[in-house]
Amino acid sequence: MNTYRYEENPIITPADVRPYHDGFEVIGAFNAGVAKFNDEVLLLLRVAERPISDDPGIVKAPIYNPSTGLLEIVDLRKEDARYDFSDPRIVRDVTTSAGFAYLTSISYVRAARSKDGHNFTIDDNPLIYPSNDQETFGIEDPRVTQIGDTYYIYFSAVSPVGIGESMVSTKDFIRFEHHGMIFCPDNKDALLFPEKIGGKYYALHRPTTKSIGSPEIWIAESENLLYWGNHRHLIGLRPGMWDGGRIGGGAVPFKTEKGWLELYHGATPDHRYCMGAVLLDLDDPSKVLARSSIPILEPEAVYEKEGFFGNVVFSCGVLVEGDTVKMYYGVADTSMACAELSLQEIMDSLTWE
Amino acid sequence: MNTYRYEENPIITPADVRPYHDGFEVIGAFNAGVAKFNDEVLLLLRVAERPISDDPGIVKAPIYNPSTGLLEIVDLRKEDARYDFSDPRIVRDVTTSAGFAYLTSISYVRAARSKDGHNFTIDDNPLIYPSNDQETFGIEDPRVTQIGDTYYIYFSAVSPVGIGESMVSTKDFIRFEHHGMIFCPDNKDALLFPEKIGGKYYALHRPTTKSIGSPEIWIAESENLLYWGNHRHLIGLRPGMWDGGRIGGGAVPFKTEKGWLELYHGATPDHRYCMGAVLLDLDDPSKVLARSSIPILEPEAVYEKEGFFGNVVFSCGVLVEGDTVKMYYGVADTSMACAELSLQEIMDSLTWE
Repeated sequence: MNTYRYEENPIITPADVRPYHDGFEVIGAFNAGVAKFNDEVLLLLRVAERPISDDPGIVKAPIYNPSTGLLEIVDLRKEDARYDFSDPRIVRDVTTSAGFAYLTSISYVRAARSKDGHNFTIDDNPLIYPSNDQETFGIEDPRVTQIGDTYYIYFSAVSPVGIGESMVSTKDFIRFEHHGMIFCPDNKDALLFPEKIGGKYYALHRPTTKSIGSPEIWIAESENLLYWGNHRHLIGLRPGMWDGGRIGGGAVPFKTEKGWLELYHGATPDHRYCMGAVLLDLDDPSKVLARSSIPILEPEAVYEKEGFFGNVVFSCGVLVEGDTVKMYYGVADTSMACAELSLQEIMDSLTWE
Repeated sequence: MNTYRYEENPIITPADVRPYHDGFEVIGAFNAGVAKFNDEVLLLLRVAERPISDDPGIVKAPIYNPSTGLLEIVDLRKEDARYDFSDPRIVRDVTTSAGFAYLTSISYVRAARSKDGHNFTIDDNPLIYPSNDQETFGIEDPRVTQIGDTYYIYFSAVSPVGIGESMVSTKDFIRFEHHGMIFCPDNKDALLFPEKIGGKYYALHRPTTKSIGSPEIWIAESENLLYWGNHRHLIGLRPGMWDGGRIGGGAVPFKTEKGWLELYHGATPDHRYCMGAVLLDLDDPSKVLARSSIPILEPEAVYEKEGFFGNVVFSCGVLVEGDTVKMYYGVADTSMACAELSLQEIMDSLTWE
């Protein structure tokens, strides 16, 4: 597959983003939702900020306090045997079975704007910031679905009670309406289809289960985008393949002549994240027509292989112009990049069911 | 609290239920949903059947095949180090972090009918049986909410892709309409309120999270009972108390003068299941008004303490007549019992927020 990675890649790095919080450093500007607004390309960056620690023996965990609207910081001593600090993104409490007890950074959404899609100017202030007790550990991995003149922006809301998917909407990227949590914990990687299909809205989502089951992609229906039901399992892991460890929705699905094309992420059990595609029936997106046997994009460039959490390409949105798919994607949980792919080549690469 | 346990307790035992499957034994008739229909009390029993094994070295796991409509049986050797058989209800695959890989029985819903609420006649055939690929490990713990002349019956749908809450509805307990999965995995213990409140339907539900969070009770909203959103965390565990290990909705919430009363189950970390109560605001059931500091019912009778999985009282439904709360409840994951409690005494026992 011919992949044109932008010469400017990574197009946005943490160094381009001024910290919003005093005493913090920006460690990630990545996994951005994508929108076209007033002839500009908007990247809704996930910005991750980390408290600067003077003491190498201390890991700091930032927590949003919804009562005060301020961040509070918990100091964790590295020698504390209760905690496992081996994953730089999280702190595990080894006395529990939970995936994490704290995050080492707090994420929120900040806009980057561009006329040409290559060169971006980053807003000084957050666009969407934690605002309630379901977001005390931050909001992550925003996606944007435009329906008419309304932009629906949804993201992972992270707090001690779980990770779910919450949603806001806006017409102007100034005033936002909050719609609460649309998929309850554990859930991530929701993606709303941009139009009704057979009279219903559809969404992809990615439950993470504890009792049984794997991190796989499900589909749900709605009448109003706020309330969701008829949940069905859509596609699963493929052991031994590029998407054998975990999968989740990536870019907002878009319509092609042959079906709805969803560019999703898949990881191996050792956390190498690639992008691939799945083609869904135009009239019934719960029907899988074809899927990538090999990735359409995998971590190859240095900025994709090295960073805060390396070997990750992770797209939350694309712009499609004719045969050109401009895929914006987070790299190494650190920065943003963009690659152009041929829609026809993606379609030709799929393995039909 | 004055608790009147029926003299007939346990009112239904596995010995009262003829196996539906050749070569199976009924090991549980428990955790029944409760409905009033045509002047009868209907208990929608969770019936668990287990393949009879001649070989003590083999544990058999039944799996429903949606293509054939038949059960298939997987033989697991007890000496196989890959599996952990210590919990009689499940088989764990120790090479994974999943809670279980197989169930040792398959559950479905069967009706028991009574004129007096004490003596029941059990149907010969299942009322609701697994019917799709989300129910291959069975359907469990049904609850019934009557709205007008329609009975909404919802239950845990268990399969290798996860445990979610699915729903059917009926007006006559003969013809059933299937509404699919209303809460995606991992979720159990859904409870639909029996009327609209402020123009919206409400439900309690119990996500089980892997990343972070505990098995606790959430509340959601709906316009049509099928699609749910605005998920909010309602009440959590109370370490050291009777509900410090896990909690979940129990009986269908009912209206009192002071608020919606929900009789929920709570367990300690060592799996002692009791029933307690939480009182929710009449106009906004996301507001918690009061809660049981001590259980309203705990395992004390022999049939509650001993059985397939002992020390469990677990109610899925009540009948309220004046001050009398007739609480039907599963005991020891084995049988059904009933106890009458005073509504006033329950209310008086609550600790207000």
